[in-house]
Amino acid sequence: MSNTRTLNVNGRSYQSMRQPLVVVCVDGCEQEYINQAIQAGVAPFLKKMTEQGTVLGADCVVPSFTNPNNLSIVTGVPPSVHGICGNYFYDLETRQEVMMNDAKYLRAGTILAAFADAGAKVAVVTAKDKLRGLLGHKMRGICFSAEKADQATLEQNGIENLLELVGMPLPSVYSAELSEFVFAAGVKLLASERPDIMYLSTTDYIQHKYAPGTPGANAFYAMMDHYLTQLDALGAVIGLTADHGMNAKTDSAGNANVVYLQDVLDAKVGVEKTRVILPITDPYVVHHGALGSYATVYLGAASNAAEIADKIADKIRAIPGIELVLTREQAAQRFELPPDRIGDLVVVSERLAVIGTAASRHDLSELKLPLRSHGGISEQRVPLMFNRKLGAIPADHRLRNFDVFFLAMNFTR
Amino acid sequence: MSNTRTLNVNGRSYQSMRQPLVVVCVDGCEQEYINQAIQAGVAPFLKKMTEQGTVLGADCVVPSFTNPNNLSIVTGVPPSVHGICGNYFYDLETRQEVMMNDAKYLRAGTILAAFADAGAKVAVVTAKDKLRGLLGHKMRGICFSAEKADQATLEQNGIENLLELVGMPLPSVYSAELSEFVFAAGVKLLASERPDIMYLSTTDYIQHKYAPGTPGANAFYAMMDHYLTQLDALGAVIGLTADHGMNAKTDSAGNANVVYLQDVLDAKVGVEKTRVILPITDPYVVHHGALGSYATVYLGAASNAAEIADKIADKIRAIPGIELVLTREQAAQRFELPPDRIGDLVVVSERLAVIGTAASRHDLSELKLPLRSHGGISEQRVPLMFNRKLGAIPADHRLRNFDVFFLAMNFTR
Repeated sequence: MSNTRTLNVNGRSYQSMRQPLVVVCVDGCEQEYINQAIQAGVAPFLKKMTEQGTVLGADCVVPSFTNPNNLSIVTGVPPSVHGICGNYFYDLETRQEVMMNDAKYLRAGTILAAFADAGAKVAVVTAKDKLRGLLGHKMRGICFSAEKADQATLEQNGIENLLELVGMPLPSVYSAELSEFVFAAGVKLLASERPDIMYLSTTDYIQHKYAPGTPGANAFYAMMDHYLTQLDALGAVIGLTADHGMNAKTDSAGNANVVYLQDVLDAKVGVEKTRVILPITDPYVVHHGALGSYATVYLGAASNAAEIADKIADKIRAIPGIELVLTREQAAQRFELPPDRIGDLVVVSERLAVIGTAASRHDLSELKLPLRSHGGISEQRVPLMFNRKLGAIPADHRLRNFDVFFLAMNFTR
Repeated sequence: MSNTRTLNVNGRSYQSMRQPLVVVCVDGCEQEYINQAIQAGVAPFLKKMTEQGTVLGADCVVPSFTNPNNLSIVTGVPPSVHGICGNYFYDLETRQEVMMNDAKYLRAGTILAAFADAGAKVAVVTAKDKLRGLLGHKMRGICFSAEKADQATLEQNGIENLLELVGMPLPSVYSAELSEFVFAAGVKLLASERPDIMYLSTTDYIQHKYAPGTPGANAFYAMMDHYLTQLDALGAVIGLTADHGMNAKTDSAGNANVVYLQDVLDAKVGVEKTRVILPITDPYVVHHGALGSYATVYLGAASNAAEIADKIADKIRAIPGIELVLTREQAAQRFELPPDRIGDLVVVSERLAVIGTAASRHDLSELKLPLRSHGGISEQRVPLMFNRKLGAIPADHRLRNFDVFFLAMNFTR
C-alpha cells in the first residue's frame, strides 16, 4: 500500500505498514520447541529474534485447536465473535454433527480481507486445505494450500504453476515437507510478488510426533529457521505465534491416558442420554486419533435441564484425568466461545490426559508413536515473537496469540 | 528375613518378601523421561518393564519437592503424618526460618526402620547427604550418601571403604555421577550384602538441566537402565517411582517466568506485613536458584486474621502465573500437610512459572541453562513401575508414589 492508513476490523484498529508483514502461525508450537532448538544450536535466527527482536508469551484460544485459533489470529477476535470454536458442533435442530470448515459459519471478516479490500497485496499459504477456505474468505489476493498446491489456478487461488515457483514436489499431507512447502512458498512469494501482508500457517504433524529438543523436532525448527532467515533478509517484519501448544498425553510407557467420556456417561447416566462431541475431529486423524484434551457434551432437553447438567457435571468432575467442567454459559464466558455452538457442558482434561468418546470409536493402531496432543488449558501458552523491538504494551493487556497482527502493525515502528 | 511376616507401619501393613526388594526413587523423573528414553532405544530394560512388568502412574505429594516425597515413600504416609513438608518452615515462636532437614522434625517411623528392627537386612543409599539422616532415622543397617561416601564408617553408616567397593571416585555433588554412584553402589551391595530391602534415591541435577528425550537426559536414563538390568539379573524385585516431576519454567527464549511474590506483596500489602517462604530452598541451589512452583505465606497475627488472609489471597490469585491459592486449612486438607508447618496461605504457580521471594534475593546468574523446576501440581504425576506383574489393585485406590513399598510387598507375589 502506498500511503499509511488505519483500518478498523472487528472493533480493533490496524495501521498499514511500509515494510511487508509476514505473520507465521506455527501449528502446535509449544514454547519449549523454540527454546530447545535454540539450546541445541540449530536455530540461529530464532536466537537472534530473542536477542534483537521481542519475545513474549501469549494465551491462545481454548479449545486449543487449530481452526478456532487460526481464525482468531486472522480476525483479531475470540470465537465468540468469529464463530469458529472447533471442527464440529452438534446441530440440535437437524440432530447432526456439523463440520464447521465451511466459511458460511464464519461470523466476522478477516484483517486480511479488509486490507485487501483497501488495496493491499495479500497472500495466504496454509499447509492443509481445510483452512484455506476459512482464512481466505472474501479475500482478494493469493490464497492456497500446500496440500493442493498442484491444483492452484490464477482464477481460484490468485496464482498458478506453484510447484515450479516453489521448486518442491507436492508434499504428502502427513509430512514435515507440507510445512516446509508453506515456508518455501512464502520466501518465493515475498521475493517475487512482495505482498504487503502474508499469512503462513503450518501443520503440527511433527509436533504430534516429536517432543521438544528431540532430533525430529529440532530438524523441523532448523528448517523453519532457514526460511525465517530469508524472510528477514528480504526486509519483512515477522510476527510468529502458534495456534496452540502440545503435550505428551501418556504414561512413562508411552500408553495414552484416555478418558472415554461417552462410555463413562453411558454407564453412569444411560445410553443415548448424552452426546459427547470432540471438536478436534477432522478428516486428518492419523496423528492424534481424534483424541484431544477438550470435549463438549450435549444433554437432552428437559424441564429440569440445569439441575441435570449440574449432576452430570459432578459425575464428570469425579473422573480421574478431568481438569475442569463448565456449563455452556460458564464456558462461553471464560473461553469467549459462541454459546450456540457448544454443548450443555464443556470438559477439559489434565495436561497428560485426553478425552475420547467410546473406546470402540477410536482406532489408536494408526498411532506409531506415543500420543502427543492438545485442546486443553495445558496447551494455552504459546510463543509470540517478533524480529523487531516493540513499543511499550500496556501492562494490563493480557497478551493473546490473536494480538499478533495488532502488535506487528501498531507497535513495531 | 527367613520367614514371612507382616508388619504394621503407620497404619498400613507390609509383608516381608522372599526376594530382595529394591525401591528406586528417581529424583525429578517426569514420566516423559522414561517414555522418551525408551523411544530413543537407549533403555531396553525400562522397555522390558513396560512389557513384562507393571507400569502405573501415581500422584506425588504437593509440594512436589524432594524431602516431603522421599519421606512419604519410606513412611508410606503423607506429610500430615510424617511432618516433613519442605526444606524450610517459619517458626512463629522464634520468628526464624527453620530448616527441616533434622530428623527431630520427623513424626513417623519408616518402613525401613521397622523391617530392620524385625530382623531384615536393610540398606539405604542417597545421592545428597541432606536426605541420609532423615531416611536412615533410627534404622539399623547400611545408610550412606554418595556425596560423603568417602567418609562412611562401619559405626556410622554400617559400611566402609565404599569407594573401593563401588569402584568409582567420589563424585561431585553437582553431577550425573552422583546418581550413578547410588546405582553402582546398589548393585555392589545387592551382590555382596544381599539386603532384604534396599532404597536408592538419586538427585535431579540432570532433570533440572535437560528436557526429556534430549541427549543429556537420554544418557542419564541409559546409565540407569544399565544398573537396573543388573539389579534385575541379581533377582531383585524392583519398584521404581519419583519424588516429583519436572517442567520447563520459561518462555520460548528460555527466560524464566518468575513471580517475585514478596516484591508483589510488599508493594500491595506493605513491607514486612507478609513473609514468603520458599520451602524448596536448600543448601544446594545452583540448579534451580531456589525457584519452584510452590510457596507459603505467613501473615502477622491480627484479630481479623481470616479476613486479611482472604483479601491477600485474592490479590495473589490476580497475579498472572499463579494457579492456586489456599488457606492453611484448605491446603492442609487437600495436600495432606501438617498445618503447623505451613503458612497462612499456600500458593502454587502454573506449569510454566515459578515463585520467588524478592528479585534481589535470587541469583539466576548461576543458571547456565534455561530454568527447569518443580514444586507445583503440574509436577505431581510420576511413574510407578515394577519389574513384576502386580495383582489387582482396587479401582478406587488413588495411586501415590508412596504406595511403592505397599504394592511391591503386598501385590507382587
